[in-house]
Amino acid sequence: MTQPLSRYPVPALKDLPEDIREKILQVQEKAGFVPNVFITLAHRPDEFRAFFAYHDALMLRDSGLSKAEREMIVVATSGVNHCQYCVIAHGAILRIYAKNAQIADQVGIDHRKADITPRQKAMLDFAVKLARTPELMQDADYQSLREHGFDEEDVWDIGAITAFFALSNRMAHLISMRPNDEFYLLGRVPPPAKK
Amino acid sequence: MTQPLSRYPVPALKDLPEDIREKILQVQEKAGFVPNVFITLAHRPDEFRAFFAYHDALMLRDSGLSKAEREMIVVATSGVNHCQYCVIAHGAILRIYAKNAQIADQVGIDHRKADITPRQKAMLDFAVKLARTPELMQDADYQSLREHGFDEEDVWDIGAITAFFALSNRMAHLISMRPNDEFYLLGRVPPPAKK
Amino acid sequence: MTQPLSRYPVPALKDLPEDIREKILQVQEKAGFVPNVFITLAHRPDEFRAFFAYHDALMLRDSGLSKAEREMIVVATSGVNHCQYCVIAHGAILRIYAKNAQIADQVGIDHRKADITPRQKAMLDFAVKLARTPELMQDADYQSLREHGFDEEDVWDIGAITAFFALSNRMAHLISMRPNDEFYLLGRVPPPAKK
Amino acid sequence: MTQPLSRYPVPALKDLPEDIREKILQVQEKAGFVPNVFITLAHRPDEFRAFFAYHDALMLRDSGLSKAEREMIVVATSGVNHCQYCVIAHGAILRIYAKNAQIADQVGIDHRKADITPRQKAMLDFAVKLARTPELMQDADYQSLREHGFDEEDVWDIGAITAFFALSNRMAHLISMRPNDEFYLLGRVPPPAKK
Amino acid sequence: MTQPLSRYPVPALKDLPEDIREKILQVQEKAGFVPNVFITLAHRPDEFRAFFAYHDALMLRDSGLSKAEREMIVVATSGVNHCQYCVIAHGAILRIYAKNAQIADQVGIDHRKADITPRQKAMLDFAVKLARTPELMQDADYQSLREHGFDEEDVWDIGAITAFFALSNRMAHLISMRPNDEFYLLGRVPPPAKK
Amino acid sequence: MTQPLSRYPVPALKDLPEDIREKILQVQEKAGFVPNVFITLAHRPDEFRAFFAYHDALMLRDSGLSKAEREMIVVATSGVNHCQYCVIAHGAILRIYAKNAQIADQVGIDHRKADITPRQKAMLDFAVKLARTPELMQDADYQSLREHGFDEEDVWDIGAITAFFALSNRMAHLISMRPNDEFYLLGRVPPPAKK
Repeated sequence: MTQPLSRYPVPALKDLPEDIREKILQVQEKAGFVPNVFITLAHRPDEFRAFFAYHDALMLRDSGLSKAEREMIVVATSGVNHCQYCVIAHGAILRIYAKNAQIADQVGIDHRKADITPRQKAMLDFAVKLARTPELMQDADYQSLREHGFDEEDVWDIGAITAFFALSNRMAHLISMRPNDEFYLLGRVPPPAKK
Repeated sequence: MTQPLSRYPVPALKDLPEDIREKILQVQEKAGFVPNVFITLAHRPDEFRAFFAYHDALMLRDSGLSKAEREMIVVATSGVNHCQYCVIAHGAILRIYAKNAQIADQVGIDHRKADITPRQKAMLDFAVKLARTPELMQDADYQSLREHGFDEEDVWDIGAITAFFALSNRMAHLISMRPNDEFYLLGRVPPPAKK
Repeated sequence: MTQPLSRYPVPALKDLPEDIREKILQVQEKAGFVPNVFITLAHRPDEFRAFFAYHDALMLRDSGLSKAEREMIVVATSGVNHCQYCVIAHGAILRIYAKNAQIADQVGIDHRKADITPRQKAMLDFAVKLARTPELMQDADYQSLREHGFDEEDVWDIGAITAFFALSNRMAHLISMRPNDEFYLLGRVPPPAKK
Repeated sequence: MTQPLSRYPVPALKDLPEDIREKILQVQEKAGFVPNVFITLAHRPDEFRAFFAYHDALMLRDSGLSKAEREMIVVATSGVNHCQYCVIAHGAILRIYAKNAQIADQVGIDHRKADITPRQKAMLDFAVKLARTPELMQDADYQSLREHGFDEEDVWDIGAITAFFALSNRMAHLISMRPNDEFYLLGRVPPPAKK
Repeated sequence: MTQPLSRYPVPALKDLPEDIREKILQVQEKAGFVPNVFITLAHRPDEFRAFFAYHDALMLRDSGLSKAEREMIVVATSGVNHCQYCVIAHGAILRIYAKNAQIADQVGIDHRKADITPRQKAMLDFAVKLARTPELMQDADYQSLREHGFDEEDVWDIGAITAFFALSNRMAHLISMRPNDEFYLLGRVPPPAKK
Repeated sequence: MTQPLSRYPVPALKDLPEDIREKILQVQEKAGFVPNVFITLAHRPDEFRAFFAYHDALMLRDSGLSKAEREMIVVATSGVNHCQYCVIAHGAILRIYAKNAQIADQVGIDHRKADITPRQKAMLDFAVKLARTPELMQDADYQSLREHGFDEEDVWDIGAITAFFALSNRMAHLISMRPNDEFYLLGRVPPPAKK
């Protein structure tokens, strides 16, 4: 009863445009495998390019939020959206950045009870509200972030990451994107010794 | 009590990177004004570039959906997300593409009672469900689209436009993006005679 | 694919009871056309009489709320109820009373971001909560109105208008009441010169 | 900790307009007491007159629905709106019309498990949906009623009673209307012997 | 159209294990009848034993909450869960413990407007939130209870009773458990004179 | 920022009643550690005894459902209730029973996309609906289970396990029960070699 990678055909690497094949090979080099989000979204090359440009603009920029905090936002909002791919894949990344084998499961299920700081809980309260009921955001939500020391650019980062994964979660639901087997153990056990 | 364009500073055109200034000037040339989504998102140039690359990949591509149908998806999903900027701005675009002065108000409030075809209603049922409760999508939802004659690429378009505006609506809510005055009348009355 | 005025037969003016025909002719004289709520609800004369008696008792009385504020309540609560007829018809009336071509679209989509006063936002917060989750009203909601300077009779007006349009929205949904073409432009452009 | 009859002052009978005092005295004559809905809504005479004209137009007319069925609609929709006054007062009336001491508690808590016919359950499914999520009504809901033998006028009755009590429930919540002590036992035990 | 006691077969007393028959006979001796929860859950003897052991551990223990307050929790949370058996059966018990013929209907429909103390309303606010949205409990909810004088063991009692009836309500919904006729009048009228 | 095991004091093993200490020592013997649900619920011995008697009656009985299927119900319903302890602890047990390192993450996030059979998906659809909206269960839900080959006793098992974990999830939320470190890796990697 193993589900396929996607409801859509998955292109062969050799059939992809050069720049996309290049990007995928780089990821494979770095991660040791090709996360399915790359191979499944490559079905639409232009959208693929924009998707990863957007992702990198948010997740790789210099920010008042640590990389682990940014992944917490991904995992918490993907959790309330019940997005299997994003919780499992970004849960792995969160474990690695936070050097914490438990944090992804905690944040993905209920950030209110996770081993994180009150400041991080306020960050995730804001993100989860924006993810599920964006129309209810009000000044008090921004005020709470300021009281926890987030500046205006931090707030943009929190909101924009939430917004980007609102898109990403819906793409994953739309095509029933399957997480790679590799993600399940990443960051839970020491990595296998490199050759 | 006029609300500002954004919770964030709005950059002056002259301070923007060349490519972004160029794009904005082109839009201004074509539309006769600069929609606020351009000037407010330019606060973050890299995200700006990815945002509009994504937008154009979806909204300008050859598709089984007409341009008016794509804008219907934007207006209907932005309506259930109560996104002021997107309903008003894309409502204007929808009126123009559909050559119908009433359709945007109808679709933005309740697509079930709009003057559209049963096929278009099925398309918007799918989009609105994905917009608000992506975790509940099931095979029957895809089956309904197929029965109305949508093929697999059409379904991707419907879903991907919904996903992109899930992002866009959240950015607009996040920064309290204000729609331009010009949108309110566009497509409701004949355009002013060109000079 | 134009929808009919109602799921129910629409009576001819000549077949209506005298008092109802009279009322409809007066409205036509004043507005220049017969809003469909009159002609569709006339299907049931006794209910018609009570409906408009109730409407007039609330909307025409001397009140601490301006006429524009009362129409804001109608538009905001009809917006969260996704009632096509009421948002479009009362949106037109709101534009006229407020002498503001943008306010109806803003309030109908998201009153929190409309160009209105904080006092008016508090009024609409109360109304929208009563409209959708009446069982959750609590003392703090009344307290918020008092802090914004509303007295007890103002609170009754806010609540009673909300309650009346809870009825009206459901009647419009029940019969799929169609808004008149005339409403779409009213208050958006200067009225045509009178003959 | 007894709650008052209303958040608003309750007028003395002698201070009311003649026609309203008359109506209240008639009710008292018939029922043996004055239900609080009369005395509390009399705070606003014009609204009072419209309210009861509307109520009587719906609840006293010749209809394909029995009086007990109409009260079932009131009790079921007031139950999902958690309206204390309407469930308790109309629960009493339902017990009397249905000559059934248990039906009001059953219908007010969960109509799906009440001792009623499948046709009545379909009627209440429609009513409860219109009461809570009017924007979701669709052709299939009307079709279900037709399959259970309801004609178009019956459907109007079901919907209009639901709509009227959407108003009534909100007025009761707004003013915290208290049910009379008398309602609790009415229709549960044989009435006291008349003098 | 009388509904059966359960979707499952109801065992005869003589076919039950000795300890269960004994317990049921004791209840019958005390109450004058066998509440259907005993006879319907006896379909599974081991679950029966655990169910009533749990019930008695919570409802019969020495506690900072009076027995009437514990039944208020049952009735209020069963009300928001729309559980016919629990509202009607425990409504009867609440009327008896509170010596108040009105309180069960009030608490079961809307505890916010019941004739109870502010302390009891705070208790039921906590319980109702835990019943319907347990994932949203936060420190402020516990703080509110402490401010009303509840100690830590009281909070456990409030929460544990809510939790137990979350189970009980779901069992009653699962099997469509029917309340006994006797419950409807208990505590509303003086008990019949004993022989 | 490590959260404590419980909001309540955790008793020392030596201070517990003999039967409870005995049960805990047996679990420790078998599992190699004491799951926190034992040590935290032991705060209330009588409730502890009933809790585990109920648990064992459901989870250890002969049933048409396999042990892995029963744990799927726990994980799926605890997932929609966002219960950290139950998803993590029972996720471990599910991995072990199903001999599948991925299934718990899949089922806990979105059972609709898990690598399970259509029959198991139907089982979890029923369970998740009963967990979150028990008042909406209707004949069609039972019919779906029968069509997938579940008999009446299987349906009871599905419902009763859901009901029991409705209780368990609320107890875990109430006391902020922390999962043991051991659970995170159980069933993901081969167990350490026994001494």
